[in-house]
Amino acid sequence: MGKVLVFGHKNPDTDTITSAIVYAYLKQQIGVEAEAVRLGEVNNETKFALEKFGFEAPRYIASVQGEADQVILVDHNEFQQSADGIEEVQITEVIDHHRIANFQTADPLYYRAEPVGCTATILNKLFKEHGVAVPANIAGLMLSAIVSDTLLFKSPTCTEQDVQAGEELAKIAGVDAAEYGLAMLKAGADLSDKALEDLLSLDAKEFQFGSYKSIVAQVNAVDINDVLGRQAELEALLTKNVADNSLDLFFFVVTDILNNDSTAVAIGQVAEASAKAFGAELVDNRIVLPGVVSRKKQIVPVLTEALK
Amino acid sequence: MGKVLVFGHKNPDTDTITSAIVYAYLKQQIGVEAEAVRLGEVNNETKFALEKFGFEAPRYIASVQGEADQVILVDHNEFQQSADGIEEVQITEVIDHHRIANFQTADPLYYRAEPVGCTATILNKLFKEHGVAVPANIAGLMLSAIVSDTLLFKSPTCTEQDVQAGEELAKIAGVDAAEYGLAMLKAGADLSDKALEDLLSLDAKEFQFGSYKSIVAQVNAVDINDVLGRQAELEALLTKNVADNSLDLFFFVVTDILNNDSTAVAIGQVAEASAKAFGAELVDNRIVLPGVVSRKKQIVPVLTEALK
Repeated sequence: MGKVLVFGHKNPDTDTITSAIVYAYLKQQIGVEAEAVRLGEVNNETKFALEKFGFEAPRYIASVQGEADQVILVDHNEFQQSADGIEEVQITEVIDHHRIANFQTADPLYYRAEPVGCTATILNKLFKEHGVAVPANIAGLMLSAIVSDTLLFKSPTCTEQDVQAGEELAKIAGVDAAEYGLAMLKAGADLSDKALEDLLSLDAKEFQFGSYKSIVAQVNAVDINDVLGRQAELEALLTKNVADNSLDLFFFVVTDILNNDSTAVAIGQVAEASAKAFGAELVDNRIVLPGVVSRKKQIVPVLTEALK
Repeated sequence: MGKVLVFGHKNPDTDTITSAIVYAYLKQQIGVEAEAVRLGEVNNETKFALEKFGFEAPRYIASVQGEADQVILVDHNEFQQSADGIEEVQITEVIDHHRIANFQTADPLYYRAEPVGCTATILNKLFKEHGVAVPANIAGLMLSAIVSDTLLFKSPTCTEQDVQAGEELAKIAGVDAAEYGLAMLKAGADLSDKALEDLLSLDAKEFQFGSYKSIVAQVNAVDINDVLGRQAELEALLTKNVADNSLDLFFFVVTDILNNDSTAVAIGQVAEASAKAFGAELVDNRIVLPGVVSRKKQIVPVLTEALK
C-alpha cells in the first residue's frame, strides 16, 4: 500500500490546512505513510498560525490523479469542495464536522463526523483514542483551527467540547488563547489591501440548494467597510462570476469579527429568495444578518431549506 | 426535544435489530429519550437471539412520518434501505459499517462508520467511550450480531476488532461463542420449510449501480439445495419482481454457511454482465461464487465497479 494523502477543502482555511498537517502527523505516529497536501492558496490567517508554530505550508496539488490511490479527507466531504479526480481514488477516511452531501464511496470506510465547531476538536479525541501525545507545536496548530472556526469561541457553532479542547491545547502550546487568537484573527481580517478578486475565492464553497447551483463565500473583517466600501466593483465581479459559472446564486458574506454580525451581498436569480429565507429584504443587493457569523450553522441550513 | 427513534435497515437482520436495541439502551443511560424500532419482520435467526437473551422485538413502524422529528440510523445509511419518509426528519446520528451512498443531511451530525465486520463492534467502543458498562443480556445481543455478520468470524469482513469484541462480549454474556453462535446461525439457515417469496425479502437490499436499479438479496443455508432445488419457481419469482419494480438486476445469493461458498441466481438485463464482473459465466441463470460470503465486501464493490 502506497502513501495516503490527507487534505481539506478547496479555498482552504485554517482548520483545513492545519487538520491535514495534524492528522497526517497522527497517522505517521501509528505507522501509516501519510502526507498532508493542500488544494489552494494559504490565506494570511493560516500563514500567521503556521509561522508562529514553525510549520511550512503543505505541498499544493491540482488534482489527486496520479498522486495516490488512497486519500483521507479532513474538514469536508462534499465532492465539489474536494480535489479534482476525487471520484477516481479510494477514500479510506473522513474526519469532519459538516453536514454530509454529495458524497459516496464504493467501499466501507472510517468516517468520523461530530457536530462540533472544528475538526481539530475531533482530532484531539483521536490522539487520546490512539494513546499518542500531542506535541506543543501540533497543539498550537489545533488551537489555531479552533479559534478560527469558532471566532475565538464566540460562534454559535462553538460547543463546550471546543472550549475544553481549546483550553487544553493552549496549555500544551504554551500560549494565551485569547491574546494569540485575536492576533491571528486580525492577521486574516485585514482586508484593506486585498484585491476583491482574491476575496471572492478566499473562503468560497459551492453548494447545490435544490436545483440551484450556488456559491457561499465568507470573509472575516475587522472593518467591513474595507469590503462594502467597494460594493460597485464587488457586484460587477459577482455578476461576472455568476455568468461565467452558470450560478443561480453568489452569496458573499462579510463578517464583522469584533461585533459578530454579518452583511451579505447576493447576486443571481434567487438573490431575492435568499434574502426572504432570512426574513430580510434585499436592499441595494445587500442583506443585513444581525448575529449571523456561521456559514455552516446559520446560513447553509437556511438556504438549503428555503431553496429546496 | 422529543423522543429520538433508533432503527436499522428494511428487511432487518440480526445486527440491525440488536444494534437498534443496544444503542437505544446506551443513549438512555446517558440521558437521551430513545426508542428502538424496526422496519420489517424479525427473521428466525434474530428471534433465536432475542429469545435467548430475554428481549422482545422492537415496535414495528411503517414510516417515520408522525413518529419523531429526530432519528438515529444504525447498520445502514442509504435512504432506499431506510424508513419511508426519512428525507423529512433530522438524522442526528449514524452508527454504521457500510459504504456511504445516497445519503445526505442539511445539518452537521454525529456519523461514526468504521470498516469493521459488524455495527455491534463499534457500539462496544461507544460503551467504553461513554464509560457505561455492558450488561450481560445486552452483551449477548451484541455477540449475536457479530456472529451473524461475520458468519462465526469466518467472513472476509471479519476484522481483529470483531474477534476481540466477540470474545469480550461472550465472556460478559456467559456463553460459549462457537457453540451458541452455530446454534443461532442454524436457527436462521434452515430454509427447508420456507416459502420462496419469504426468502426473496428476508435480507434484500436495493442498490443503484451506475444507472442500473438492482436488488442484491442474500440467504444463509445449511443445505443450499433447500433453495436451489426450487430454481424454476425461484426464477419465476425473480422475473416477476424485476418486471414489477423496473429492476435491471435481481442478484439472489445463497450462501453455504458450513462451506463458506455462494451460488447466485441472477435475473435482469445486466445478469450476464453481473456474472462477467466476477470473471464467471452465467449458466442456467446461475453464477458459482467460490469463497464468496460477504455481500458488502465481495459482491457490492464488484458490481459497483463493473456496472458503473
